[in-house]
Amino acid sequence: MKKRPMTANHFSLRILATRNLTLKQALLVVLTVFCTQAAPYISAASTDTRLPLVAPHAQTVTATAQSLWDWAELGYLETQSSSLLQQTLADAGFNVTPGLADIPTAFVASYGSGEPVIGILGEFDALPGISQAAVPYREVIDDKLRGHACGHNLFGAGSLGAALAVRDYLAASGQSGTVRFYGTPAEEGGSGKVYLVRAGAFTDVDAVLHWHPGDENKASPSSTLANKSAKFRFSGVSSHAAANPERGRSALDAIEAMNFMVNLLREHVPEETRIHYVITEGGIAPNVVPNFAESFYYVRHPNAGELATIWDRVIAAADAAALGTGTSLEYEVIHGNHSVLPNEALARVAYEHLIRLGGVEYDETDRAFARQIAQTLPIGEYKDGSESVIEPFSVEQGKGSTDVGDVSWNVPTVGLSTATMVPGTGLHTWQAVATGGTALAHKGTLVAAEVLAATAIDLLKSPALIEAATAEFLERRGPDFVYAPLLGDRAPPLDYRR
Amino acid sequence: MKKRPMTANHFSLRILATRNLTLKQALLVVLTVFCTQAAPYISAASTDTRLPLVAPHAQTVTATAQSLWDWAELGYLETQSSSLLQQTLADAGFNVTPGLADIPTAFVASYGSGEPVIGILGEFDALPGISQAAVPYREVIDDKLRGHACGHNLFGAGSLGAALAVRDYLAASGQSGTVRFYGTPAEEGGSGKVYLVRAGAFTDVDAVLHWHPGDENKASPSSTLANKSAKFRFSGVSSHAAANPERGRSALDAIEAMNFMVNLLREHVPEETRIHYVITEGGIAPNVVPNFAESFYYVRHPNAGELATIWDRVIAAADAAALGTGTSLEYEVIHGNHSVLPNEALARVAYEHLIRLGGVEYDETDRAFARQIAQTLPIGEYKDGSESVIEPFSVEQGKGSTDVGDVSWNVPTVGLSTATMVPGTGLHTWQAVATGGTALAHKGTLVAAEVLAATAIDLLKSPALIEAATAEFLERRGPDFVYAPLLGDRAPPLDYRR
Amino acid sequence: MKKRPMTANHFSLRILATRNLTLKQALLVVLTVFCTQAAPYISAASTDTRLPLVAPHAQTVTATAQSLWDWAELGYLETQSSSLLQQTLADAGFNVTPGLADIPTAFVASYGSGEPVIGILGEFDALPGISQAAVPYREVIDDKLRGHACGHNLFGAGSLGAALAVRDYLAASGQSGTVRFYGTPAEEGGSGKVYLVRAGAFTDVDAVLHWHPGDENKASPSSTLANKSAKFRFSGVSSHAAANPERGRSALDAIEAMNFMVNLLREHVPEETRIHYVITEGGIAPNVVPNFAESFYYVRHPNAGELATIWDRVIAAADAAALGTGTSLEYEVIHGNHSVLPNEALARVAYEHLIRLGGVEYDETDRAFARQIAQTLPIGEYKDGSESVIEPFSVEQGKGSTDVGDVSWNVPTVGLSTATMVPGTGLHTWQAVATGGTALAHKGTLVAAEVLAATAIDLLKSPALIEAATAEFLERRGPDFVYAPLLGDRAPPLDYRR
Amino acid sequence: MKKRPMTANHFSLRILATRNLTLKQALLVVLTVFCTQAAPYISAASTDTRLPLVAPHAQTVTATAQSLWDWAELGYLETQSSSLLQQTLADAGFNVTPGLADIPTAFVASYGSGEPVIGILGEFDALPGISQAAVPYREVIDDKLRGHACGHNLFGAGSLGAALAVRDYLAASGQSGTVRFYGTPAEEGGSGKVYLVRAGAFTDVDAVLHWHPGDENKASPSSTLANKSAKFRFSGVSSHAAANPERGRSALDAIEAMNFMVNLLREHVPEETRIHYVITEGGIAPNVVPNFAESFYYVRHPNAGELATIWDRVIAAADAAALGTGTSLEYEVIHGNHSVLPNEALARVAYEHLIRLGGVEYDETDRAFARQIAQTLPIGEYKDGSESVIEPFSVEQGKGSTDVGDVSWNVPTVGLSTATMVPGTGLHTWQAVATGGTALAHKGTLVAAEVLAATAIDLLKSPALIEAATAEFLERRGPDFVYAPLLGDRAPPLDYRR
Repeated sequence: MKKRPMTANHFSLRILATRNLTLKQALLVVLTVFCTQAAPYISAASTDTRLPLVAPHAQTVTATAQSLWDWAELGYLETQSSSLLQQTLADAGFNVTPGLADIPTAFVASYGSGEPVIGILGEFDALPGISQAAVPYREVIDDKLRGHACGHNLFGAGSLGAALAVRDYLAASGQSGTVRFYGTPAEEGGSGKVYLVRAGAFTDVDAVLHWHPGDENKASPSSTLANKSAKFRFSGVSSHAAANPERGRSALDAIEAMNFMVNLLREHVPEETRIHYVITEGGIAPNVVPNFAESFYYVRHPNAGELATIWDRVIAAADAAALGTGTSLEYEVIHGNHSVLPNEALARVAYEHLIRLGGVEYDETDRAFARQIAQTLPIGEYKDGSESVIEPFSVEQGKGSTDVGDVSWNVPTVGLSTATMVPGTGLHTWQAVATGGTALAHKGTLVAAEVLAATAIDLLKSPALIEAATAEFLERRGPDFVYAPLLGDRAPPLDYRR
Repeated sequence: MKKRPMTANHFSLRILATRNLTLKQALLVVLTVFCTQAAPYISAASTDTRLPLVAPHAQTVTATAQSLWDWAELGYLETQSSSLLQQTLADAGFNVTPGLADIPTAFVASYGSGEPVIGILGEFDALPGISQAAVPYREVIDDKLRGHACGHNLFGAGSLGAALAVRDYLAASGQSGTVRFYGTPAEEGGSGKVYLVRAGAFTDVDAVLHWHPGDENKASPSSTLANKSAKFRFSGVSSHAAANPERGRSALDAIEAMNFMVNLLREHVPEETRIHYVITEGGIAPNVVPNFAESFYYVRHPNAGELATIWDRVIAAADAAALGTGTSLEYEVIHGNHSVLPNEALARVAYEHLIRLGGVEYDETDRAFARQIAQTLPIGEYKDGSESVIEPFSVEQGKGSTDVGDVSWNVPTVGLSTATMVPGTGLHTWQAVATGGTALAHKGTLVAAEVLAATAIDLLKSPALIEAATAEFLERRGPDFVYAPLLGDRAPPLDYRR
Repeated sequence: MKKRPMTANHFSLRILATRNLTLKQALLVVLTVFCTQAAPYISAASTDTRLPLVAPHAQTVTATAQSLWDWAELGYLETQSSSLLQQTLADAGFNVTPGLADIPTAFVASYGSGEPVIGILGEFDALPGISQAAVPYREVIDDKLRGHACGHNLFGAGSLGAALAVRDYLAASGQSGTVRFYGTPAEEGGSGKVYLVRAGAFTDVDAVLHWHPGDENKASPSSTLANKSAKFRFSGVSSHAAANPERGRSALDAIEAMNFMVNLLREHVPEETRIHYVITEGGIAPNVVPNFAESFYYVRHPNAGELATIWDRVIAAADAAALGTGTSLEYEVIHGNHSVLPNEALARVAYEHLIRLGGVEYDETDRAFARQIAQTLPIGEYKDGSESVIEPFSVEQGKGSTDVGDVSWNVPTVGLSTATMVPGTGLHTWQAVATGGTALAHKGTLVAAEVLAATAIDLLKSPALIEAATAEFLERRGPDFVYAPLLGDRAPPLDYRR
Repeated sequence: MKKRPMTANHFSLRILATRNLTLKQALLVVLTVFCTQAAPYISAASTDTRLPLVAPHAQTVTATAQSLWDWAELGYLETQSSSLLQQTLADAGFNVTPGLADIPTAFVASYGSGEPVIGILGEFDALPGISQAAVPYREVIDDKLRGHACGHNLFGAGSLGAALAVRDYLAASGQSGTVRFYGTPAEEGGSGKVYLVRAGAFTDVDAVLHWHPGDENKASPSSTLANKSAKFRFSGVSSHAAANPERGRSALDAIEAMNFMVNLLREHVPEETRIHYVITEGGIAPNVVPNFAESFYYVRHPNAGELATIWDRVIAAADAAALGTGTSLEYEVIHGNHSVLPNEALARVAYEHLIRLGGVEYDETDRAFARQIAQTLPIGEYKDGSESVIEPFSVEQGKGSTDVGDVSWNVPTVGLSTATMVPGTGLHTWQAVATGGTALAHKGTLVAAEVLAATAIDLLKSPALIEAATAEFLERRGPDFVYAPLLGDRAPPLDYRR
């Protein structure tokens, strides 16, 4: 789950005002939303007067969001989603470089020239195993075993809107400066951005902007947990479990022994550490001693250096499990994200814009939808207007993780979240999928896009702002910092979702 | 795995001679065999003069064996296999009752009238997850994820041959007496016979005969382990494993806690006990506390009563795991087999016939095949003539389990094995699948069929033999014995292989 | 370990200046220190001009501290220590009530009359298993397997000094008011104060003062962890572990099963929880299945209510372990302390006095001693003057526990620590024992006594202060608070150290 | 526990007849018994006419048995017991060599000259932790925390009687031949005999005789389990378990991790393996992360070679536990015994003598005692005359272990048991201690002594018998056998009982 600028699962949301929508405009939106197979670059006026920068691209944003939601492509397999974004940007005059870092669905699209260089991140990968229609009750879509439960369809589309708006500014102002849209695949356990960082895609960027859908409006310079994962594969010796158990060496024994020692470890790591695992392969048939078994571990800590130390101890437990059970071990690092390095200088800018704009504004339809959704949530009841609240500015340690982290240790980075989901909704739930396919979510997306665009334009206008952000960035990183990806030199796991 | 009359995985084999095959017969065989996709190494009608009783049915036996091998239908899904057997028996004048005990593929076919009633068991289910061509090297058949790794295609076909031969005898002699072929599905973990026993299908039977393919020739009154299995399903509470682990109750924790206590239990059960498990569901994603997890346990012991006591302690460990981890438990008994109750009186008869006939006789082709297979086995080398050795008569405690066990506690029962597999071959291996599709295997099958037929005819002729077997049966069971199926009153798990 | 007003093991210390000590005075001190068998009530001028209130009792304080150090009596067995304190207070005109709450070594000594009533807590129990001479290198005292590793000899003596000083004030001023010295035994795992609280010994008290020896000077309103402990005793069935292991039910299995489930629990409790255990009885001989085994658990959390919830889950794990291993369980709650409820109003008063007085002031002897001790500590080196630093005022969550906690939820309570130990010294170490027997420690003790006395006198003088403290106290407790001792209704474990 | 020639804990017993005992003789016995401080070499006629060889030494045997019972000296600390035996043998003309194999209480006493050389083993160590008076109900002797719960007081005294009787024969016959009494300390977990074997004390011996007290009369050539033990000591890092658990490395974690992996191992070793452990040190105080912990393991298997393989896997689990928990491991092999190598040729001789003599013969007093004891046993009731039954000759695999094993792989060895305990009594129980201090036990002892003496004399007379025994011995050992003590090259653990 990606939750960079947030500290918890819960967000709140205020819908874009649509009060002045004419019948014709409404029809257009409806048509756009239902026509999910294409989202051409459309210039059209926004109905929300708070959003002058993204208003011309509102239909593009919503249509794109809807297409991505419908396709719900998994990490590194986001072929259609990536193509749509690339095409839209190319159509708007961006210079597009596909296949970044040897990842087919990664790309960068650039507009303008010279400094400063402002990057905007766009994600678009869905999650496996979750299927839900865009209705406020549980309804599985039978032919789809995946869904945008983390709202990355909105993320990609909103960032697209921001990039287009910044392009408008550059085009209109003639100012020196470059805006780049980074199409970053496979955030969910794929660490897509880390490979881009490792390949040097951000070395000449002055600041990076991003956002994330959520259930609240927030622009605080919070951090996340650094996160590293691996699959542990043990090999033993099969034998008939009744006739010759003594000839067998159980790979499942090794899995359990490793887990045992890791569970003992919990007492002896800093309390903010997180270690969690599942057993992805635990033997085939009870009457055969399993000669193969596999577990999948995540290890997290606010500090990447501390995480490395804890990681080594988890590896020691795995090695020990093999030794103690007469099996052999291979493990594969699956992904690894740094924590997010906050930047208060940048965050203040985004925060001011968010405050100025306000949160999401619901209409009656949205409210009805929110009421129904809320009844299925732990909160039980929708609190009127909660979607328009802006969370106070604060520096917090979030418990989630994101590959934005690695970007943030290489470039001053700023993000925000808006309430694209009904307040009380957790990420990675069917409610998150459901809402992400509705107009309600688009409203939050456009607010985010406006904040990103306004912040980017401020940065383009103000060298001092970039200087301050850079100074804070260097100070926070420390003089001895050397970036090393937590996932080492492994190639992108392009087939991890196949 | 079914291993009733054997004590270990290893058997030996001698092939039936096919020297006197006519052209017409050869053609028929070829056609039959080729009707079942392909069988490069082909069997034919028996020319083995040792087998007067089954010789007339040799082609039927081999063709049937080959069809079943090719279809390789899984437990309770053996529609074609069951139909073919039923049709063949009906064509031979048997009165067929399908759908026994509410199991679509179970049936009984009866011929003759009056007492004594002799039952012959026929199995025909294949195993999932194993695919292999009938060649002496590893070659997966891509479109088939199942195979006759326990030789039940031979079992069903050989028993068919025996039933047909006994029919011939009854028809020719005009003697009072009934022969019944029991089509018993889902031996592999499905306990098919137990439902037939429970439904009373054997209450009026005087003796039951059966056999099993193996890698040696043996007719000793050995026993097996009683066996009971269940799936343990724990339910907990999901939560985000990094943000709110304290809200989660991990079902996987319960799985591991149960396993832990069961592993402690190993020290405190009789040493001949066997307990083995796999984890069939161990969580979906590391970042979610698993709210569901499942394990699959087998518990075995030579004695059903002792097994019941140990079973209760395993259940206590499961209950304890739920209690100690704040989760809830449901478990489903999957199957349950009694041990085989040996009958020495009957076993002596079968043994004498086996000794008289000799084991399997290879020709050059068989030997070449055996040599190649042996190189892939732990034994490394094929020992010339080992397939014709008859194992000495002895009473042994086998370590396998079979649902023949439940029959044997209700009717005096006798079985044997013949070397249908290359000596050194283990059951449930690709080598077992491979050989089971060749002429080599058919030779052992016909030897078994001849022994079964000869034994059945002896029983039909000799009331004293049946009396002695019955007396021994009652003595071994003990006066206080009351049969109760280990699987209780559950319905047949007709979809356990879907 | 008791560490109420501190957040970690490390404290800093400044020794009382003794520069103006005359030869005669020095001799007297030396004599007093070496004459450890008695410490009569002695009125003598202090040499530290910062300490006008306790100066008259300096010799009494140091002699008492030395006697207690020498006796090093364990919890509930502090007969001599308690007697000495009682006698000294009686000699000074206090009215002494011994045997409080049916605890032979608990007492209260009262002076003055009417309101307000100010309580001062005094501890005096030592720790088992640690023996050390008063020298700056490791030297075990052979005949003593216990020592004042938590500095309670200083605690008792310092509080005595404060009580005597307050008595002087009451006697001189003639003001209404009562000072009470509470002799509170068995802080170390005995929860002595909780029984006094439960017996109502604090119901009419307006404020309670206490302090604790440490390695730094601090008077912040910090909290501690609520703490509850129990011994878990499992009973099984013995059997010969080689001949009849199946007849045995191992109590040690139950211990390990409980531990296993508790270790799984670690992931699913709030991260600030602490659970730790030892195995106090793990079987006698390997060749006998253990029919008895015992573990000793502590469970802690900042919040007593949350602790109760976690406690229930630990008990569930214990019950589950018995169920899953066929054993039976009895458990005995050993002790239970509430967290300390901070009182900022009172803390400010103490803090101001501490700031005014300054920390500990070393002479050359002290510094030489400190240098030697520091070399044996993780810090490696003594930092000159660190003993005189005053830690800034802050509200912190400490990780230790103390039975002062229960007092603090019944009466507004304030405490401080002074650097009686060399900065860098951890509690419960031989270095803590060593220093506690030297003049260096006495200096910190007198500073603490002066702060306590001055704070008490302020409270006696200012009803507004007591009102403010009480208001804050009621607010922090909340309106629905009902005090319930975590250790329930058990009797004091008077023999827990025998 | 030593149970060489037995297969289970239960034995039966018949008491020596004392019907013809005169009053004077009775008094003498009483006096001898009560005078436990000395047992001089006394020549006196036996009252049991079945025992001509040992009758002259009956008083010596009983008095010695009683002294040893009373002293109840623990392994390697049997100073008085060893001295008494040495002195008695020296007085009878034996040439005594004390301090064998650098063990103060080990000795060999030799009489006669030339070949053959017949060894007789004598044990005399008691067990810790068990105290019981010689009464038929539970009565602890307060000042004694040890007792002869395995009857080694009888073992030593009975073997002494046999040695004296053989000496009489050699002296009277003038035949060539040597009888040696081996004083072998510390059988109970000390492996005393292994050090003697290792030191070459048996290299020139032709046959070794021994016996063991029990609850039945038996002279079958049974075997035992080879047995090896070690203490596993893990070292970690202490820290405060609440304040800094992350700094600690728990040695108790390592103990539990090792146990976990060994418990998994149980499924994957031959079923006749035995592994059992206790935790001898599991931490001191819950609030301190334990930096030391210790377990004590026994591993057994009928075959020493197989045991070595399993042992290596246990060591791997221990190494793994250290690796996986960040601790370090030292382990000390404590003892190691080979299985007993049976010798049927010799066993037949002893068996014939036992059959000829009959078992134990009770008088009324014995019977009354037996009835009372039996009521405290699982059997519940004493079966009249069961003490005189001789168990049939058979070759069995016992589940106990003894250091006689190592002797038996170096010299043809024969043993027996007699019913010195009430039938139904288990070794290592208070009932075993109680009976071992009564005249009842002495009767069984004298029967054993007579059988040993008669067998030894047969061997002295018959070179063919020794040849046959040697031939069988060499055949059973196999041509490739090379003796290696399981305990390696460690020195005797002379202080293991301190």
